[in-house]
Amino acid sequence: MSLTAPLTLTTERVALDLGARSYDICIGADLLAQASSYEGLPASSAAVVVTNTTVAPLWLAPVRAALHERHRQVHEVLLPDGEEHKNWQTLQRIFDTLLEHGCDRKTVLYALGGGVVGDMTGFAAASYMRGVPFVQIPTTLLAQVDSSVGGKTAINHPLGKNMIGAFYQPRRVLCDLDTLRTLPARERSAGLAEVIKYGPIADMAFFDWLEGAMDQLVALDADALRTAVRRSCEIKAAVVGADETESGLRAILNFGHTFGHAIEAGMGYGVWLHGEAVGAGMCMAAELSHRLGLVDAPFVQRLRALVARAGLPTRAPVIDADDNAGRYLAWMRLDKKSEAGSIRFVVIAEPGRAEVREAPDALVREVIDACCAD
Amino acid sequence: MSLTAPLTLTTERVALDLGARSYDICIGADLLAQASSYEGLPASSAAVVVTNTTVAPLWLAPVRAALHERHRQVHEVLLPDGEEHKNWQTLQRIFDTLLEHGCDRKTVLYALGGGVVGDMTGFAAASYMRGVPFVQIPTTLLAQVDSSVGGKTAINHPLGKNMIGAFYQPRRVLCDLDTLRTLPARERSAGLAEVIKYGPIADMAFFDWLEGAMDQLVALDADALRTAVRRSCEIKAAVVGADETESGLRAILNFGHTFGHAIEAGMGYGVWLHGEAVGAGMCMAAELSHRLGLVDAPFVQRLRALVARAGLPTRAPVIDADDNAGRYLAWMRLDKKSEAGSIRFVVIAEPGRAEVREAPDALVREVIDACCAD
Repeated sequence: MSLTAPLTLTTERVALDLGARSYDICIGADLLAQASSYEGLPASSAAVVVTNTTVAPLWLAPVRAALHERHRQVHEVLLPDGEEHKNWQTLQRIFDTLLEHGCDRKTVLYALGGGVVGDMTGFAAASYMRGVPFVQIPTTLLAQVDSSVGGKTAINHPLGKNMIGAFYQPRRVLCDLDTLRTLPARERSAGLAEVIKYGPIADMAFFDWLEGAMDQLVALDADALRTAVRRSCEIKAAVVGADETESGLRAILNFGHTFGHAIEAGMGYGVWLHGEAVGAGMCMAAELSHRLGLVDAPFVQRLRALVARAGLPTRAPVIDADDNAGRYLAWMRLDKKSEAGSIRFVVIAEPGRAEVREAPDALVREVIDACCAD
Repeated sequence: MSLTAPLTLTTERVALDLGARSYDICIGADLLAQASSYEGLPASSAAVVVTNTTVAPLWLAPVRAALHERHRQVHEVLLPDGEEHKNWQTLQRIFDTLLEHGCDRKTVLYALGGGVVGDMTGFAAASYMRGVPFVQIPTTLLAQVDSSVGGKTAINHPLGKNMIGAFYQPRRVLCDLDTLRTLPARERSAGLAEVIKYGPIADMAFFDWLEGAMDQLVALDADALRTAVRRSCEIKAAVVGADETESGLRAILNFGHTFGHAIEAGMGYGVWLHGEAVGAGMCMAAELSHRLGLVDAPFVQRLRALVARAGLPTRAPVIDADDNAGRYLAWMRLDKKSEAGSIRFVVIAEPGRAEVREAPDALVREVIDACCAD
């Protein structure tokens, strides 16, 4: 597929092939208000839209109106906004609402919001009565290009990010590009981190394109965003279709995330946005790849420059004044890819191809020391 | 299979066929202390035994000793005993222990205890890092004949029983008949409720056998228990193998449970044991079947007599002095089988065959009025 193919105004569909659990990722403008966007989804008398206090004033009314054509009752759950609320207490509010309204096994949940709303709604759907259908309506760039696709759902635990969750696929993902027009600059940059990620791990042609299109992406240019969302979803769908439950390949999507999760946990959830931590984390993972002899210094510099142009931090925070590298290592040992206490890093084997490797603690400490802000 | 086949001292295996998720239910004496019982299960450096304060003094030491031959580290989580603890707060203690010990995705959980321990450990295994392997070692009759088999895991919500959970299969079920020798009389009777259940829904020859063997079962006779556990597991495995996620047939295993869950919730979890509520609930469901014109009065009387001989209540409690039937109906509308506010009951279509049906509220009220103690 050419990245410079003429753009159309029609809705594009990226298929995620998972047998009986296959679904489409629909990408287009003016999607969430159209009844046709929901055609073919499970029917039920009741629907519940889960969203947050930031997204609701912008997009809840049109979604409600469209859903009222499909469901007799449309309830809503308004969560507080922010990663620091991605915990059991907030999840419980979804269950409370479902039970207070007598929602049954056929009730359809709709996740309207960013990654936190999508992750929590997905886990609620996986667990309520042991599983009800749900639909992702991601309203942030990060959610459209990454978290809404592939069925990873979770909440955080005080001792680690996304530690409690399920692999549970949505029935559809509706990426309405209009929602990105209202995206705050910080959220936009956070989303671009996950877009950039797909280049080094899977597609250097896309990386080349991103270097040319970054100014337009930062300006939220509609055509550029459409291409970025579509190509990101294509890559993610291909990886997830090959390895749904991360027994192998899927781990490459975690490039930058092992360091990133340590940043998020070390700073306290919500201080750095997930995408900001991934931005700095990718620079660290690229530096590690270089010090393992896999990629050259200019490649690391190229990645760092693109991360910076996306408005993201390229240097990681000091999370412990006394033993910064030690604290990083301790958090990373809790990463879900770790096995028997050994941290497993996603490294760039060569530009456009990633793999999972262990690395000596001493080398990782050097990377942390080199990449952390003073 | 003849129910009167000569009994052997060897371990019997009942296969549950679920494709890649197939597993064996092993039934025999002196199983949990034998290293051979665990052969072929996933290897890992760490294991976590989840049990409760009642079971631990009896059976934790031999399980630990056997597991130390397979796992370098064997951690344990001791939960408080009782249905009233089957909630998120208690579940969190399992996650806390797993994270504090740095348990990874390969860690194997072992559920050593009754239905509450099994349901909670199973849901913890389903959710920890989005899924780790687990093994059921049921130590109550109820868990051996029902809850440990089939992968239903859950916790309770204040507004309903088993509302939050997952379908998640164990890698093996080890039914050690020796653990039943120490079973308190009340737990024994609660387990017999689920044994009796299999007769009216699936196998009247088994029901006939139970009428003859009930005195031995109440006396915890080893041969009688072995036959009861084996035949119960065979029926359950066949039903679950045909309908893992309860899209149809599996619902028949809930005979007596719609009324029973209302009893448990209405009285407050833990006041009546689950099996006690199912005992009275089966009498109510049989009475409903009779009033729907499906079975005759002598059949209802036969079931009631067997429930009574098992040491179980045949009359249901009054859960609301002002509007008892209304309160029952309100709880039952929250049952997971309900759809759009209509309660769906498992009824006996003819002795040995069950189906799911709706029933007029007025008729259900009559049944409640007729079956509740003054």
